[in-house]
Parts: sequence; C-alpha cells; structure tokens
Amino acid sequence: MSEAREVTGSRKKAPMREVLAEAAFQLYLERGFERTTVDDIVARAGVGRRSFFRYFPSKEDAVFPDHESCLADMTAFLDAADDDSDAVEVVCDGARIVLRMYAANPEFSVQRYRLTREVPGLRTYELSVVRRYERTLAGYLRHRWSDAADGALRAEVVAAAVVAAHNNGLRSWLRSGGEGDAEAAVDQALDLVRRMWGEAGQAPGAAEGDGEVVVMVAPKGAPMWRVIQRVESALRDD
Amino acid sequence: MSEAREVTGSRKKAPMREVLAEAAFQLYLERGFERTTVDDIVARAGVGRRSFFRYFPSKEDAVFPDHESCLADMTAFLDAADDDSDAVEVVCDGARIVLRMYAANPEFSVQRYRLTREVPGLRTYELSVVRRYERTLAGYLRHRWSDAADGALRAEVVAAAVVAAHNNGLRSWLRSGGEGDAEAAVDQALDLVRRMWGEAGQAPGAAEGDGEVVVMVAPKGAPMWRVIQRVESALRDD
Repeated sequence: MSEAREVTGSRKKAPMREVLAEAAFQLYLERGFERTTVDDIVARAGVGRRSFFRYFPSKEDAVFPDHESCLADMTAFLDAADDDSDAVEVVCDGARIVLRMYAANPEFSVQRYRLTREVPGLRTYELSVVRRYERTLAGYLRHRWSDAADGALRAEVVAAAVVAAHNNGLRSWLRSGGEGDAEAAVDQALDLVRRMWGEAGQAPGAAEGDGEVVVMVAPKGAPMWRVIQRVESALRDD
Repeated sequence: MSEAREVTGSRKKAPMREVLAEAAFQLYLERGFERTTVDDIVARAGVGRRSFFRYFPSKEDAVFPDHESCLADMTAFLDAADDDSDAVEVVCDGARIVLRMYAANPEFSVQRYRLTREVPGLRTYELSVVRRYERTLAGYLRHRWSDAADGALRAEVVAAAVVAAHNNGLRSWLRSGGEGDAEAAVDQALDLVRRMWGEAGQAPGAAEGDGEVVVMVAPKGAPMWRVIQRVESALRDD
C-alpha cells in the first residue's frame, strides 16, 4: 500500500523521471548497459547525480520505469474486483494490465526486450519484477480461495500458470518485433489457463443453456487430459 | 552439456569446494551475508583468495553450492526418460530431484531458507536458479509435445505449475523447520498438477478397468473446474 502511494508521488514528478529514464535507455543502447555509469546518465539528462537516485534505486530500475506503477495498478484492480466474479478471470485481467503497458509502446518494449536478453543483470532484475506480479496475483487468489483446503496451493499454481501463459504470449509478440496484435497473442495463451482452472471454463454462450444436460461417456482408464478435451468439445457442441 | 561436465569436474574437487562453502555459510550466519567478504571466507577456510573464485563465481553461489550439480542431475534424468512415459509424470519426478537435495540436509536447508529470506541479493539469486530449473523442465515438455500446435505454450505453463507446486510443498516443509516428511508435502502439491495436466491423471488402478465405461451427466453451463471434479470422482468410484 505504501508502495502504491510512492508510485503516485513519483508519477506527479513524471517529466524529470521520464527524462532520466530516456537518457539512461539511450545510453544503454549506444554504449551498452555495463559501460554506462550513473554519471553518464545525469550528464546526458542535464541534472545532478542525486536526482537519479531520487527516482531510481539502481541503473536496472531505469530500464523498467513503469513496473512500479503497473504493479500499483494491478493491486488496485484486484482490490476493486467483485468477490462474485470468476477469480481466474480476474487474475487473467490483472495480467493484461502488464501486457497493455508493453503494448502501449511497441518500439521501446522491443528494444528493451533485446537489451534485457543481452544483459544478465537485467534478466535477473526482470525475474524479480515478474515474481512480484506473480505474488500479487497469488495473494488475490489465496484470499478468494481461503475457504478451500488446497486454496493456498491452488493460488500459487494458478498464478504461476497465468504468468507463464502471459509471458509466452508477450514474448511471441516481442520476438516478432512488436508486429501484430499483442492482446490477441496473450488472450490465446491465457485461454489455456482459463479453460483448465477457471470457474467459467466453458463454451461462450453456454451459460444461456443452463437447463441443458451434457452426457459424456469415457472409457474408465481414459487419461484426465483427454477426458477434459472431450468434456470441452461436448460443452462447445450445440 | 558443457555445464554438466564442469559440474562433474568440480565434484571431483569436492572437499575444497565443500570447505569453502561451509566456511562461507558459517560466516554468513555469524556476521550476516553483506558484511562477510571473500577475504573473510578464504581466511576461515585457510586458502588463497583465488581458490574461492575457482569454485564459486560469487558470494551468492557459495550459498547454493549444490544447485549446479542438481541441474545437471535433472538434465541427465530428463535426457534418459522414456518417450512413452507420461511427460508430466517425468517432469514431476525431475522436480523431486531438487526436493531430495533439500531433504538430504534438513538443518542446512532450513538455515539457508531463513538466511535467504533476509538477504534480497540471495532471494534474487534463488529466483534465477528456480528459473533455470523451470526452463529445463519446459524444454523437456516442449520436446515431448513438439507435435501439438499449443505444445510450446503448454510446456511453459505446465513447467511453471510444476515448479510452483514443488516450491509450495518445499516451503511448507522449510517453514515447519524441516520437521515432517518433505517428500509427502511435495507429492501432495504435485498431485494437483498431475491431476490437471498429466496423461495419467486418473484414479490409481483405473488403468486396469480399461474396458469399463464412465457416464457423466453435467448441466451444460457447469464450470469446467466442477466438471473435472465430477469426472475425477466418477473415475475414482468403483
């Protein structure tokens, strides 16, 4: 919560923060991340050294200037979610907030993706950011599933699955150079998780047929994965 | 592969490596991680400074001396796995190799868990190790599911789910102070993933009833999660 407030605070000062982030990023691309010093960055931005650290704890943070506010947006979104809604749908929508941050600036996102792949320190930094998103989503699911005996376990597994699916879709889009529809790539990936774990993992429009009944017949030794595929196609068939 | 060879190499020199890791860990516990220098460690171990870096790239690596060989063991295990086996079972068994490394030395594992929670740099390091396990498992699944259109996506989602479940079980055991049965905690957690994703996600012994048939009736609007629960209980019922 105090984090969210901090972010709101730094948002007001956005221009200087953006100037610094942009100067840092340009230098990282020109000279490489390792060879760029904070002194280089503040010189390029035309400010004092302490200004940098007022906005960014480290050189790494300046590469991902929007993750803090994105985490705050995700937290606010989850806090505001209706307790009657499908919990898995809510975390999928929460993950889409991250996607939209990337999609809002394709060129920057693609350049940063390439830079991050080359710099181990940035990859590690990114892992810790991804982990924070995952914990935020897991925390929400744990709260929603607090009555279930395996709720905490399920929360962690589903949050990890959502993040993995989101990142798979996001990465395809980044690898394609930011061409195509980022949201569609992520929707498709998240769909796999929603089908398996969501309360509403059913055919679109199926809710209307509430009174109808599906009869499924399966050999007793059938693997669960195939049984699910059959149930799905049965629910989809009209 | 070259990694595996390196590990085998350093294993032969294990005594010195172990002496260094133990000296480092004792100092981290006594003085704190940040305040311990490599000079302190080599002084305690009674060797030269360069010996440390021959075995460990960084202070962080000395806290997790067994992960490299564990990764090599996991890779070898996956390489040797039968292509006819259930791919999800194989990665669950692969994850259990990590668990057994922790369970082999409960006192050290619990102390390290507590230390890691207090030192941000160690948490980040651990994240990158966990990510390497996840990528190793995902790589295996991708290979096994290379014929499926969504194989690569499914591989990443299932690997993330397996790692999350494994870590949930491992963490319960570590939080309990290493009391109780670590393998049972992890088995229970992995079971959730096996039921959802495994080819053999079926009741024990169900394979024997190959000729039998299960008929399941569900309202058309039923959520997938509940449908699966019903299918499961139907498959379990004799």
